[in-house]
Amino acid sequence: MSEFWSEIVSELTPYVPGEQPRDQNIIKLNTNENPYGPSPAALAAIRAESQDTLRLYPDPQALTLKQALAKAHNLEPDRVFVGNGSDEVLAHIFNGLLKHPKPILFPDISYSFYPVYCKLYGVEFKPVALNEDFEIDLDEYDRDNGGIIFPNPNAPTGLSVTRAALKNLLERNRRSVVVVDEAYSAFADDSFVDLINDYPNLLIVQTLSKSHALAGLRVGFAFASPRLIEALERIKNSFNSYPIDRLALAGASAAVEDEAYFRTIRDRVIETRTRTIKNLKDLDFDVLPSQTNFVFVTHGRMAASNIAQALRQRSIIVRHFDHPRTANYLRITIGTDQEIDALIGALREILEP
Amino acid sequence: MSEFWSEIVSELTPYVPGEQPRDQNIIKLNTNENPYGPSPAALAAIRAESQDTLRLYPDPQALTLKQALAKAHNLEPDRVFVGNGSDEVLAHIFNGLLKHPKPILFPDISYSFYPVYCKLYGVEFKPVALNEDFEIDLDEYDRDNGGIIFPNPNAPTGLSVTRAALKNLLERNRRSVVVVDEAYSAFADDSFVDLINDYPNLLIVQTLSKSHALAGLRVGFAFASPRLIEALERIKNSFNSYPIDRLALAGASAAVEDEAYFRTIRDRVIETRTRTIKNLKDLDFDVLPSQTNFVFVTHGRMAASNIAQALRQRSIIVRHFDHPRTANYLRITIGTDQEIDALIGALREILEP
Repeated sequence: MSEFWSEIVSELTPYVPGEQPRDQNIIKLNTNENPYGPSPAALAAIRAESQDTLRLYPDPQALTLKQALAKAHNLEPDRVFVGNGSDEVLAHIFNGLLKHPKPILFPDISYSFYPVYCKLYGVEFKPVALNEDFEIDLDEYDRDNGGIIFPNPNAPTGLSVTRAALKNLLERNRRSVVVVDEAYSAFADDSFVDLINDYPNLLIVQTLSKSHALAGLRVGFAFASPRLIEALERIKNSFNSYPIDRLALAGASAAVEDEAYFRTIRDRVIETRTRTIKNLKDLDFDVLPSQTNFVFVTHGRMAASNIAQALRQRSIIVRHFDHPRTANYLRITIGTDQEIDALIGALREILEP
Repeated sequence: MSEFWSEIVSELTPYVPGEQPRDQNIIKLNTNENPYGPSPAALAAIRAESQDTLRLYPDPQALTLKQALAKAHNLEPDRVFVGNGSDEVLAHIFNGLLKHPKPILFPDISYSFYPVYCKLYGVEFKPVALNEDFEIDLDEYDRDNGGIIFPNPNAPTGLSVTRAALKNLLERNRRSVVVVDEAYSAFADDSFVDLINDYPNLLIVQTLSKSHALAGLRVGFAFASPRLIEALERIKNSFNSYPIDRLALAGASAAVEDEAYFRTIRDRVIETRTRTIKNLKDLDFDVLPSQTNFVFVTHGRMAASNIAQALRQRSIIVRHFDHPRTANYLRITIGTDQEIDALIGALREILEP
């Protein structure tokens, strides 16, 4: 506390991101980064942009990036908003589209940044419990609300709702904004971006961090009707006119255009996921059916926290959360085949000594 | 308006940044970019960072950049805050340190983003008039307030307050935060960063955009006592854990470390500024004594808006503001010697046909 702080500052409970170790020898399966590097075309575009023109401000509209994203999703550019990572996009969404007199709804087990945004912007919220299978039951969201937000697939569970369930909710919930946070949808069977053409209150958030192996570049975006996009632009232009630098604009545009590379690394992650799930089940793990680039697992004979600790002693880090319902679960990122072999070998040692 | 917008959205009056033309043949003297490119060491660092590790999140603490800045200013890193351009840093300052029951004070003619931040965060403010010589008279700020912010040197005037005047204010104003926005101080005779060691309520904001020719990279920072820095970190970590991407971290750190290059291009800009002022005075312009990389000028015989229009017809763009007191002034960025020669030649044609 300090007399100089605004009232809100001491009330905040800042988000704590997953550990970013400096030791390069650690096998890092804790923050869902893509194990493969970004598109070579993206790296080349960044190197080409690393020149004297960096003295000039970037395009405040980020038009080339919006056009690349619009083309990839068969949309008009006025249905695209871009920001400095999907965290910034989400922040503007909470401030510009989810702050209403009524409380907003989101899953009790979900992205832990959501309640942090609520505190930052004074947004009331009611957590909605996952069902006993850790699924989001959208029928539970069919109640009076100031807005709805959920990740799909959800993190840390890795589970998806169906298109039919979402459409059913959207048909009934037309007076508030429904935000689907698709940070992981590249690894799922379905994405709901096309539904924004049918529902003016639907907003989809995505990011290049996982799908395009560009967590280090910070580019996220939203797709929605032009009226929702306009709200985000008004907030953004009252906050920071140039949130995306020239290098990120160049790299992100090239990455989005290189669809062949995206599909290649996505398919490799999905193949490794299939093998990882089989290997973990062979070691008696319960594994939720993942639609993401991570798996959410628990083991009948050893506590999750002990497994995490034993893995760390072997230089492998995974994510463990404190929520009472998930305290006995681990979230493990799908790495390369080699990293997963090391993980499985270590788990075998730990569980079958 | 839309029923989906938060109440605040329709009340906003977003900031409008200076024009960023796509035509490369335009002589661009409108947004105070540095005419020289960034440090070759910064460009090399960015190219080196354009590799597979972009798949990993950046350091959320941005420690290497904080250390480089701390070393350059002979401070501890816990007195440094970094953000995605000084606009983002300023936004967090308005939310975290300037939002109090009492109105804040800033000059009536100044950075036009300040009132925009006030609307975004619901901060009350009272503009304080510049004196008749367009100077900030700090005696006028010695009144009850929730905080004080002003650019030094001020934009668009280019004028500075003295160290003695600032110290005098700080001695009297100890109960609220005083923010000095030093976006242009690299081109001035004095910077007040060292005073943060004496005044726990003083916060200095700087940016690499102008001084280090990195407007395209988006890196700004603040220097202050650890308690003020902590407020900004709490806001930042409730908004976006990773505001600065890996490329910007690498490029900015290298740019800050290359002090010799910084001094070289700064001195060239200051030399050209001296010559520009002389040439403009020869054409009967009134020129305020600039401490920045731009000049603020007016002409007795031709309206500023007409001069701006005539320059644009000759593919030279400068900045013209709408404020009643400055409507007959132009803000002209110091370009290369060649660009300034073109400007002076065009003005000669326009004024002495």
